[in-house]
Amino acid sequence: MSELQEPARRHQVVVVGGGFGGLNVTHALAHADVDVTLVDRTNHHLFQPLLYQVAAGILPPGLIAPAIRSVIKKQANARALLADVHDLDLDRKIVSAEEPDGRPLELHYDTLVVAAGATHSYFGRDEWAEFAPGMKTVEDARHLRDRILLAFEMAELATDPAERAEWLTFVVIGAGPTGVELVGQVAELAHTVLPRDYRSVDTREARILLLEGAPSVLPPFTEKLQRYTHERLEKMGVEIRTGTLAVGMDDRSVTVKGPDGEETIRTRTRIWAAGVQASPLAKLLAERSGAETDRAGRIAVNPDCTLPGHPEVFAIGDMVSLNKLPGVAQPAMQEGKYVGKVIKGRLAGDGRVEPFKYFDKGSMATIGYRAAVADAFGMKVTGLLAYLMWGFIHVLYLIGWGNRIGTLYTWMRALVFSKSRGHRIITFEQAHEQAVQHAAPTARPADSPASAAPLAQRAG
Amino acid sequence: MSELQEPARRHQVVVVGGGFGGLNVTHALAHADVDVTLVDRTNHHLFQPLLYQVAAGILPPGLIAPAIRSVIKKQANARALLADVHDLDLDRKIVSAEEPDGRPLELHYDTLVVAAGATHSYFGRDEWAEFAPGMKTVEDARHLRDRILLAFEMAELATDPAERAEWLTFVVIGAGPTGVELVGQVAELAHTVLPRDYRSVDTREARILLLEGAPSVLPPFTEKLQRYTHERLEKMGVEIRTGTLAVGMDDRSVTVKGPDGEETIRTRTRIWAAGVQASPLAKLLAERSGAETDRAGRIAVNPDCTLPGHPEVFAIGDMVSLNKLPGVAQPAMQEGKYVGKVIKGRLAGDGRVEPFKYFDKGSMATIGYRAAVADAFGMKVTGLLAYLMWGFIHVLYLIGWGNRIGTLYTWMRALVFSKSRGHRIITFEQAHEQAVQHAAPTARPADSPASAAPLAQRAG
Repeated sequence: MSELQEPARRHQVVVVGGGFGGLNVTHALAHADVDVTLVDRTNHHLFQPLLYQVAAGILPPGLIAPAIRSVIKKQANARALLADVHDLDLDRKIVSAEEPDGRPLELHYDTLVVAAGATHSYFGRDEWAEFAPGMKTVEDARHLRDRILLAFEMAELATDPAERAEWLTFVVIGAGPTGVELVGQVAELAHTVLPRDYRSVDTREARILLLEGAPSVLPPFTEKLQRYTHERLEKMGVEIRTGTLAVGMDDRSVTVKGPDGEETIRTRTRIWAAGVQASPLAKLLAERSGAETDRAGRIAVNPDCTLPGHPEVFAIGDMVSLNKLPGVAQPAMQEGKYVGKVIKGRLAGDGRVEPFKYFDKGSMATIGYRAAVADAFGMKVTGLLAYLMWGFIHVLYLIGWGNRIGTLYTWMRALVFSKSRGHRIITFEQAHEQAVQHAAPTARPADSPASAAPLAQRAG
Repeated sequence: MSELQEPARRHQVVVVGGGFGGLNVTHALAHADVDVTLVDRTNHHLFQPLLYQVAAGILPPGLIAPAIRSVIKKQANARALLADVHDLDLDRKIVSAEEPDGRPLELHYDTLVVAAGATHSYFGRDEWAEFAPGMKTVEDARHLRDRILLAFEMAELATDPAERAEWLTFVVIGAGPTGVELVGQVAELAHTVLPRDYRSVDTREARILLLEGAPSVLPPFTEKLQRYTHERLEKMGVEIRTGTLAVGMDDRSVTVKGPDGEETIRTRTRIWAAGVQASPLAKLLAERSGAETDRAGRIAVNPDCTLPGHPEVFAIGDMVSLNKLPGVAQPAMQEGKYVGKVIKGRLAGDGRVEPFKYFDKGSMATIGYRAAVADAFGMKVTGLLAYLMWGFIHVLYLIGWGNRIGTLYTWMRALVFSKSRGHRIITFEQAHEQAVQHAAPTARPADSPASAAPLAQRAG
């Protein structure tokens, strides 16, 4: 690293967040005369579009979550730090973070890029987080996987039919791409993957509901693709309720309100895919710069992604409201590249800045085995073709050939050959924590043990 | 499952534990006229010989830990239950377990096979478990992986050289196969895999120690293999101390006592690979049947693996002391097959029982990249040949072709091509928990933030 031992202090760029935005701005500065410090709460970049496959037990998280420092290891002017950023001082140009052992860390910047993403939003009902977990991080996805798999385990153990039905009822709230992908996976698990694994329950009896407040599934997609998705999901055994909102929930049920009035559905497993909320850093930046935030907490930035009055501070990705772009990977990636170019231009003394322009490459979602919808290149594609397009594009965007080949292999294995789900680990401790926390005691008193009947009788 | 709806009650076999022993006895009963209920605390079978590769970030746990119910799904007379067995009533022939939601579960058996394995032993110093975690379960391995990776992250953040050195010091306690394999992986991480990932620290400066109470590493192996292992580890930068015991430890150090007297080594990461202890069910069975247990808590069974006075109760695997067999996979597997045969023989009215006979297929251990030792087929093999033998045999014994191919691919990727470790996920929460729990506050007061120097200066 001797090439870095320069006496003169270089221009310091601090990037907050190692998602699509942060990683792309870092890459774009590879040959610039700057030092880049990328700070993230985790040690890994997460390829979020495939996260639902971790929740479904298809992919191990490692394939879609490479260590950030490993991704940037060849970029000599960049380093990665594991710390939690909690304050941004725009006057002193200091990023304040907490190191894992609780000690404060201060990073001085000349240029700051905040790409801190978004998290779930429960629309003010934060107490629902416990009952209906969402999926934004690797830990979230593992947790969902544990919950889904545990539900089938508990159904197998249940002796009371009503209780078994509760464990076999799954409700996914929100029918955007994530909700559709998750509900499709639950349906595949119940109907295709798991039936032969269980003896006392028929997992095909699982009741799988998808709730959506809008009049149709996949609200931003065109009607043709919505209709295809709706029909396909119904064919997979998913009960779809559009125009329907969750209005209440506890650890045993969810109450929904739709065209037919209110109904309480008994269920042990609720999955939240309904709303997102920008990182709290967006609000903080807004307060410090006088910028506005929208209902989802996203900060309004200038057309060049800078903050009002702070040309040295950029904000990009899901935490930003710019041209009503969707909260997906492409805008964040393109904004990251753009900001990198702007910073390089400034260092080269080039003051002209074209506003950021988004190139829409389209959008897509998988529904299930061999079924997807894609709205790209002016075409509306459904079915197997969309499925293959989806797979091809997502593997292409993964980081590293090793992960691409590993993912392709795992898909082949999971989808084509054995319909297996290779990553299904749960332990008693995890199961206990979840079963106890999310399942209140039932009528059967704890001191009357369920004397499990012999296999031959239970299977009846 | 209508073939199971027989009016007559079949012979009930309950198997406790889904490890090598439990799975083999279950398989051996596939075509017997019995119902087999396999109860385990987790939902997966664990291929323990490759667990250290999970700790090293090479393999995702899913490849070596298939769901038990998935493994036995084609065996119509067997079912798997996720529950924690805590009592065995040999008079009433009842297995008492706890379901994940805390409710009791009782299983009646006609024949019982207990194959509950072993866990770490700290030789009466249970308080060391917090400071020097061991590796028996998938969770243990993930935890070790987090700790090892976190140590490098913290070293990168450290500004005090003494503190950095503490984070870069790793002590593995116990030089049996597991200890040798783990220390080899830490050395590879520090010297080969990670150096290019870090900017402020040179991970090659890591100090990696291996402690062993016996006079040489790999005590049960022959001298030639011990010498090879010793030299090879030293070449990899491991400091080996034989005849040396840990006599004290806290969250910042370990105190060792060896030929040169006592010394306290400052280290943040200690790994326990020194002792094992049979499952508490061994002691319970011993008390109920009058059988004896040895120092490691293993129960002495009859030559046919039954308990004294209880021909209908078998105990096998790591929890059993029989013919001084080592606590590895082979004896458990062979005992499982043997017990399956004995049960089938009894049902067929064949009372003759040959005592269990162990066929020693040899033993082996990997040291690091292209280096292993094997003592098999009367040959003592070292180096690349042993390494390839080791890989071949272990892949062969994995369950399922999908896992075999996936493991081979991952090895090729990790070892031959990129020297990468694909599975390195840690989050701030995990890091925080570990860094705070295992790292007491140091001289630097928490309210004086470490103002991280610019990259150019820190790299000096």
